[in-house]
Amino acid sequence: MAATIIDGKAFAARVRGQVAEHVARLKEVHGLTPGLAVVLVGEDPASQVYVRSKGKQTVEVGMASFEHKLPAETDQETLMALVEQLNSDPSVHGILVQLPLPDHLDEEAVLNAINPAKDVDGFHISNVGLLGTGQKAMVPCTPLGCLMMLREHHGSLSGMDAVVIGRSNIVGKPMAQLLLGDSCTVTIAHSRTKDLPEVVRRADIVVAAVGRPEMVPGDWIKPGASVIDVGINRVPAPEKGDGKTRLVGDCQFDSCAEIAGAITPVPGGVGPMTIACLLANTLTATCRAAGLPEPEGLTA
Amino acid sequence: MAATIIDGKAFAARVRGQVAEHVARLKEVHGLTPGLAVVLVGEDPASQVYVRSKGKQTVEVGMASFEHKLPAETDQETLMALVEQLNSDPSVHGILVQLPLPDHLDEEAVLNAINPAKDVDGFHISNVGLLGTGQKAMVPCTPLGCLMMLREHHGSLSGMDAVVIGRSNIVGKPMAQLLLGDSCTVTIAHSRTKDLPEVVRRADIVVAAVGRPEMVPGDWIKPGASVIDVGINRVPAPEKGDGKTRLVGDCQFDSCAEIAGAITPVPGGVGPMTIACLLANTLTATCRAAGLPEPEGLTA
Ligand SMILES: NC(=O)c1ccc[n+]([C@@H]2O[C@H](COP(=O)([O-])OP(=O)(O)OC[C@H]3O[C@@H](n4cnc5c(N)ncnc54)[C@H](OP(=O)(O)O)[C@@H]3O)[C@@H](O)[C@H]2O)c1
Ligand SMILES: NC(=O)c1ccc[n+]([C@@H]2O[C@H](COP(=O)([O-])OP(=O)(O)OC[C@H]3O[C@@H](n4cnc5c(N)ncnc54)[C@H](OP(=O)(O)O)[C@@H]3O)[C@@H](O)[C@H]2O)c1
Repeated sequence: MAATIIDGKAFAARVRGQVAEHVARLKEVHGLTPGLAVVLVGEDPASQVYVRSKGKQTVEVGMASFEHKLPAETDQETLMALVEQLNSDPSVHGILVQLPLPDHLDEEAVLNAINPAKDVDGFHISNVGLLGTGQKAMVPCTPLGCLMMLREHHGSLSGMDAVVIGRSNIVGKPMAQLLLGDSCTVTIAHSRTKDLPEVVRRADIVVAAVGRPEMVPGDWIKPGASVIDVGINRVPAPEKGDGKTRLVGDCQFDSCAEIAGAITPVPGGVGPMTIACLLANTLTATCRAAGLPEPEGLTA
Repeated sequence: MAATIIDGKAFAARVRGQVAEHVARLKEVHGLTPGLAVVLVGEDPASQVYVRSKGKQTVEVGMASFEHKLPAETDQETLMALVEQLNSDPSVHGILVQLPLPDHLDEEAVLNAINPAKDVDGFHISNVGLLGTGQKAMVPCTPLGCLMMLREHHGSLSGMDAVVIGRSNIVGKPMAQLLLGDSCTVTIAHSRTKDLPEVVRRADIVVAAVGRPEMVPGDWIKPGASVIDVGINRVPAPEKGDGKTRLVGDCQFDSCAEIAGAITPVPGGVGPMTIACLLANTLTATCRAAGLPEPEGLTA
């Protein structure tokens, strides 16, 4: 194995540490406690785990955590009214509505009702537009985490050839915008791409955000390239026992790690960075709202 | 010369003809006349020419044209008040503030004050965000014109390798979004791109939006590729007489036309399509505002 393994778990812990320091200073110097409100509608077990984990880490860095759990049958007006209330609550600096919402709710309308300045997920169309025009935005957490790891590993990304596989609104497209903002030559590939192996082979940076277990083999990777594996796929693991499963990424870790210069593992790569970036975004939002200089190195 | 010359002038005339037909029907069936308001601040000669030309073509397709000319020393509040007035004027379906604005005015604030539904230039961050997330948007006119010509020439663009040279907010970036929306594999290149000839050589579609006279020579072009030349550059033309000039694109027309499958000339390619798309956008905005089905083939 030649590649440096990028330890997302350790990196995320470091980011949380930085956030915690800033939060402590904000409290001490400005009497200001950043607050993150998380809204969960319904009983989706995975969402419950995420929300619990977010709440725990929010408190650990010294922020206030507000959890709003609504029953699955909550109607649109009730949810919109809650968002409005959080928008105007000065102790709330970040608002996150856990997705997916139950089918009867209009997800887009809810996301776009959030005050863009408190939209720590970066999904509001104003934030998409700000990012898309190179202005200060709230940046989606998962691609922000990928960017931080790449910057840490490479320093400047300027002039590098980057390929993003996947064009979703929450990962692929904002990732491409961020890499472009850092002056990579960016290619966006997806299910209609004709010769994906060839496209990936040119890249100094490969970000895989597809959702297909181990679809990228090592022989697609240019020697020395950096591989950021966003995919989180649960696959059967009969070797661990009957009915057991394990998590794999969108890349074949072993074969890619033989060729790549650096690679993020799954689990323990991109995943842990996502919540760390959520906390970083909440801190950034707090500073912007208070007219204070925003912490360096914690946003795009 | 092997390439098909894409006649933007003729194409634009056809688009205007389609728009005119729709406008006539809107008037007859719905008693509705689309209206386009153009705001010009100051005396910039080029801007005056554009505005005059827009006004003329607006009237020719049967729309109402409202021209608002303000002195160069107009202050921000006055301009914002005018935008507000146009936002709430039901006879105005499209608003265009001619750029550049005099230096003392905040361009971004003005553009973002326009009601996004009337933002026929597509520069409002909400429209950037809508386009960036694959939703119905007002699409910037120049890239929309390029897309229309490519669709007309190729039918489906799905799976084609497209390279956009240039990453400006008004041409390069929205062009990339549009090509991605049509399922091209899209690469965005710019001044930091390391091996531009090689990047361009892979492309089935090349859109050049740089602003450098004839920088793309024929030997960068893959045989049979489609070349869309957005650049408009004025260069000395001593052969026409002392102090004379002529317009050239970002591509070397003759050498590119020998290799390409199709190419847009400068002038007479992308240029004429821009105003045609402005009129198309105004029509689309009118239909959306009235809750009528929008005309087909006139937006992304
Ligand atoms: N680490 C984290 O915190 C985190 C956060 C979010 C997501 N994820 C993971 O990241 C992965 C992607 O998530 P997502 O939300 O972006 O997924 P998504 O919305 O399903 O998008 C998947 C993208 O992959 C493309 N694709 C599908 N099959 C392909 C193929 N054979 N070749 C090339 N491209 C292909 C699709 O192309 P088309 O557009 O053409 O269909 C689409 O653009 C998932 O595994 C998800 O669990 C992880
Ligand atoms: N036909 C029409 O209606 C129409 C409409 C608008 C514009 N235009 C014309 O289109 C051209 C571009 O306009 P724009 O507003 O997009 O220009 P712009 O804002 O100046 O952007 C130019 C882009 O080209 C890139 N670039 C500069 N030098 C380069 C090089 N040597 N190699 C590769 N890329 C390079 C720049 O890269 P960096 O970002 O790295 O600096 C930038 O992204 C101009 O000629 C303009 O007149 C025509």
